[in-house]
Amino acid sequence: MTGSTGFVGSHLVRHLAGAGWTIAALARSTVAHGDVPVAARFGYGGATQDVCRAVKEFRPDVVFHLASLFLVQHGAEDVEALIDSNVLLGTQLLEGMRLANVTALVNAGTGWQSFRGPGYEPANLYAATKQAFEDIVAYYVSAAGLRCITLRLFDSYGPGDKRRKLLRLMLDALRTGVELDMSPGDQVIDLAHVDDVCRAFIRAGEMLLQQREPGAAVYAVSGGERRSLREVAAVLEKAAGKTLPLRFGARPHREREVMVPWNGPALPGWEPKVSLLEGFKRLLQKERSL
Amino acid sequence: MTGSTGFVGSHLVRHLAGAGWTIAALARSTVAHGDVPVAARFGYGGATQDVCRAVKEFRPDVVFHLASLFLVQHGAEDVEALIDSNVLLGTQLLEGMRLANVTALVNAGTGWQSFRGPGYEPANLYAATKQAFEDIVAYYVSAAGLRCITLRLFDSYGPGDKRRKLLRLMLDALRTGVELDMSPGDQVIDLAHVDDVCRAFIRAGEMLLQQREPGAAVYAVSGGERRSLREVAAVLEKAAGKTLPLRFGARPHREREVMVPWNGPALPGWEPKVSLLEGFKRLLQKERSL
Repeated sequence: MTGSTGFVGSHLVRHLAGAGWTIAALARSTVAHGDVPVAARFGYGGATQDVCRAVKEFRPDVVFHLASLFLVQHGAEDVEALIDSNVLLGTQLLEGMRLANVTALVNAGTGWQSFRGPGYEPANLYAATKQAFEDIVAYYVSAAGLRCITLRLFDSYGPGDKRRKLLRLMLDALRTGVELDMSPGDQVIDLAHVDDVCRAFIRAGEMLLQQREPGAAVYAVSGGERRSLREVAAVLEKAAGKTLPLRFGARPHREREVMVPWNGPALPGWEPKVSLLEGFKRLLQKERSL
Repeated sequence: MTGSTGFVGSHLVRHLAGAGWTIAALARSTVAHGDVPVAARFGYGGATQDVCRAVKEFRPDVVFHLASLFLVQHGAEDVEALIDSNVLLGTQLLEGMRLANVTALVNAGTGWQSFRGPGYEPANLYAATKQAFEDIVAYYVSAAGLRCITLRLFDSYGPGDKRRKLLRLMLDALRTGVELDMSPGDQVIDLAHVDDVCRAFIRAGEMLLQQREPGAAVYAVSGGERRSLREVAAVLEKAAGKTLPLRFGARPHREREVMVPWNGPALPGWEPKVSLLEGFKRLLQKERSL
C-alpha cells in the first residue's frame, strides 16, 4: 500500500488487517508511520528502484495505491510535487509490478476528474494529474496484463481526520461558537464515511483477486446521500442537537467549485452503510471523548 | 520553442525564421545549441521557475512544444526521465503560460498513442506519457483559456537526422553493402519529410493566431503515402538506382510493433508536398555530398 499514513490509508490498513490481509507499506522515509499494523515497511526516497525492490520483495497479491498530493488549488511552486506524487510514483509502482509480475492494482481517483458533465474535464490540476495517471495505467493494461480498478472518491470523513476540510471547520465552529463565513451553500456534496470508503477498497481488491482478464475499470465511491452543503449542515445540527454559527453567503463560491459531483457507476457488490446522521453522531461522540 | 535542438525542432527553427518569426529557445543548458537562428535562449535546469521566467520575459504569441524523450521501448531506469521530459516539462510550460497569459500552444504527440484501432491504446510508455500530457492540457483549456493543437507525428526523415532509425540503417546498408536483417516488413509505415512536418507546425501556429476560443484539437501529420516497409525499401532502391542488401524476415517483428498507423484527422489547410521518391532522392544527394 502507498498512502498508508494518510487519512483513508491509515484506516484502510486497520480494515485490511482486521479482514486478515498482510500489509506492506511503501512510504517516504520522512513520514511518521504511527501505530498501524503493517507487516513490512519499505522506504521511498523518490527512486524507481526503491519501488521496484519493495514490490519484488513483498510480491503482493494486490497493490493499493492511495498516496497522492491533494491540492484544491495550486500555484507554480506545486507543479513539480503534483507530477511527482500523482504521476511519477504511480508509474514507478506500475513498473515495479510489471517486473515482479504483480498485476492487480486498486487506484484512488477523484470525482473532480469530471468538473461538469459526465466526461473528463478536471476541476483542478490535481484532478488532471489523476487522469494523467489513468492514461499510464492503460499502457500497463495493454502491455503487461494489468488488472486495475480506480475508485473515484468524493469527500470522505471520519475519526482522526486532520485535513483542513470544511467539515473540520464546521466542527470547530460548533465547539467554539465562533461564526464561520460560508459560500452560498447550494453546491451538492457527497460525503462518504471512511469506513464505507475502506470497505469499497477491500471490495475492489477482492474483485481483482477473482478477475483473470487484464482491464481497467472506474467506479464512483458515493456516500449515498447527495445533499447541498446547507442540508449537510442541517444534518450536523440535528446530530449535535445544536445550531451551527454559519453565515451562508458571506463569501463567494471558490473558483471552479464543483456544483454537482460526478455521477459515475457504482462499485458492484458494495454500498455505503453509514448514513450521514449516524456518521456525524459517531464523529461528535469521538470528538467529545477526546 | 522547446526541443529546438532536436531533429524536427532544429529544422522548425529555420523554417519559422524563414517565414519571419522571432524565436526563443528553452533548452537544458547541457545541450549544445548549434547554429540555429534563435533570437533568445533560456536555460532549463528542471525547475518550474526557469520555465515561468522564460515565458514571462519573452511573452511568445505561440509556444511550440517539441521537447520530448523518445523511447520505443523502456526499462525501469527510464521511468523518471520519461515522466520528467514528457509530462513535467510540458506542465511547467503550461503553468508559465497561464501566469504570463500566453494561451497558444502547438504540441507534438505521436501516432503511437493509438496502437490498434482509432481510440487511445498506447504502443509504449512513451506514447502513454504523451497522452498523459494531453490530459494536463485539458485542465489549462478549461481553467486558463488555453488554445492547443496537438500534432501527432509518425516517422519523419530528412537531412541531418542523427537518430538510429530504420531509414538510417537502410542508408548505411546501401552505402556499405553490408546485409541488414529485417522484420517480415509487412507493417505499414508513414514517413513524412521533415519539411512537410515543419510546414504543419507553422500552419498549426497560424491557425492558433486566428482562433479566439479555448480548445484542444488533435491532428495527424501523415506523409501522405502509407506503404509497407517492403514497399518503402523498394522506393529507396528506385531513388538510389541500386538494390538494397536487406534480408526481410530474418528477424521477428519487435514487441508491440504498430502494424497499421493511426488514421486521424488531417490538419486543415495543410498537405504533404514531398513524395517519398522525391524525399529519398534529395536525401541521397545530400548524403553523397557529405
